[in-house]
Amino acid sequence: MSNATSSTDAFRHKLDSAHQRVDHALNQALSALPFTDMPLGKAMHYGALLGGKRLRPFLVYAVGEMFKVPALNLDAPAAAVECIHAYSLIHDDLPAMDDDDLRRGKPTCHIEFGEANAILAGDALQTLAFEILAKNPMPDVAMADRVAMISELATASGLAGMCGGQALDLEAEDKSIDLASLEKIHLHKTGALIRAAVRLGAFSAGSKGHDVLPALDKYAHSIGLAFQVQDDILDVIGSTEETGKRQGSDQESGKSTYPALLGLEQAQKKAQELYNEALDALAFLEQYEYDTTTLKQLASFIVERKN
Amino acid sequence: MSNATSSTDAFRHKLDSAHQRVDHALNQALSALPFTDMPLGKAMHYGALLGGKRLRPFLVYAVGEMFKVPALNLDAPAAAVECIHAYSLIHDDLPAMDDDDLRRGKPTCHIEFGEANAILAGDALQTLAFEILAKNPMPDVAMADRVAMISELATASGLAGMCGGQALDLEAEDKSIDLASLEKIHLHKTGALIRAAVRLGAFSAGSKGHDVLPALDKYAHSIGLAFQVQDDILDVIGSTEETGKRQGSDQESGKSTYPALLGLEQAQKKAQELYNEALDALAFLEQYEYDTTTLKQLASFIVERKN
Repeated sequence: MSNATSSTDAFRHKLDSAHQRVDHALNQALSALPFTDMPLGKAMHYGALLGGKRLRPFLVYAVGEMFKVPALNLDAPAAAVECIHAYSLIHDDLPAMDDDDLRRGKPTCHIEFGEANAILAGDALQTLAFEILAKNPMPDVAMADRVAMISELATASGLAGMCGGQALDLEAEDKSIDLASLEKIHLHKTGALIRAAVRLGAFSAGSKGHDVLPALDKYAHSIGLAFQVQDDILDVIGSTEETGKRQGSDQESGKSTYPALLGLEQAQKKAQELYNEALDALAFLEQYEYDTTTLKQLASFIVERKN
Repeated sequence: MSNATSSTDAFRHKLDSAHQRVDHALNQALSALPFTDMPLGKAMHYGALLGGKRLRPFLVYAVGEMFKVPALNLDAPAAAVECIHAYSLIHDDLPAMDDDDLRRGKPTCHIEFGEANAILAGDALQTLAFEILAKNPMPDVAMADRVAMISELATASGLAGMCGGQALDLEAEDKSIDLASLEKIHLHKTGALIRAAVRLGAFSAGSKGHDVLPALDKYAHSIGLAFQVQDDILDVIGSTEETGKRQGSDQESGKSTYPALLGLEQAQKKAQELYNEALDALAFLEQYEYDTTTLKQLASFIVERKN
């Protein structure tokens, strides 16, 4: 087995184990609630545990572990960030929004449980995110850092972040927009929550985390955008089998994308530049003797993934 | 002027001043956000400041002031509770939920700004509630009590509280339900947030507030249900001019109500019983030398109001 392969295998193993860990935390949080047998309770479970890469929880774990924070402290922020992500997908799929029937190859929440339950499931998953951050055990995290996590997650999710980005995206529909506008949408719609995941991992480490926040923010910014650029590239070159959506579906729907604005080659160059910026940010952290192996592997994974 | 009239005037003045105070806090929180000129920003403002009694913020102020907590500490919890209430009204009015075109005599949020913006405005107002509680000044409140407020507001708003109540209500539509089921709906759909308002006021006082929580919970439980019973009574006996909705509209829509289940006279007796229970709870607090005048006036106001 080559080194590259074994390193990829090790990374896949880390991804899987973070996935299992956060799913366990989500299951626990959901089953501690009442009304789990009602359609609303089932819709929340369906939306939160439907699958996906668990990229945001992985970032919480990876950053926290870089600071040697015991994983027990990271389950709450990891689950909270995923609750926000899950709620946003449920609401984005609604008929009044993107009107999607399928997500990850399965019926979307409103198709499965009806629109009223889907709206409420998104609402209650957002609430659950803050309930988890306020209540769940983080034995080594100071109260002030718990509040910093709540504050960060709220700012990243609301009008200044994800919701604002979704509104920008809806306004840009069927319009031709420039690169700056496209980037503004991504930085709000998905970038803010990715940065929040990184910051929540950092806040679990207290002052050590706060001290290197600019470098972590730069890393989050770079991989967040790289993720979007690669998404757009895969829409052009990826096979349906691997991406789970029809090749060229973005182009057909008239969505502004990096390849559409820059051409495929320049879009690929852009992804590479963002990857290099992420590594620069990590090089800064290495000066402080932090082990950035996992974060480096994640950056590679993001620009090399095929789905 | 009779004593009763001057006491009513004094209470109306307190209601107005709490109203102004929380609206100022909401305006400040909203104008500190970006994107306020986008439809989404305007929809949030519209939903949060459309009017209403501001009952929940009033409870935060009244309970906090009973503990002699400076009002500066109460603006954040008062505004946060109102954000949750405002978001719930926006989402409840959506076509997939209660499908209402008018609220307080004005077009509902989705009529004015479209469904996508209304969904997002509700989402972002919920987020803003937690952002305010995590960030805004509460100079005399310990960090642990701030976290207790966030935890309480989340539990009261999510599946275990308001969202669960809305789901129970939707399930009960066009069904005949018994008194216990009706009460379960109200205790979750509206009671949980009213109790949270009272508790947030109490948590602002630290251990003093925690010490008398059972009595405050009993007060909140009684006035919360009394509010619903009186609402149902007004639907039968109130004039359209005073209530702002057509007399008998609940009956026509087949909604289960207290007068429908108990008869008008027994419903009025129920409201009086709940009022007496609220006074019992306050009598307990008076043993600890707390001045419960305002909370007593509020209980009277709730069962005597004409709209």
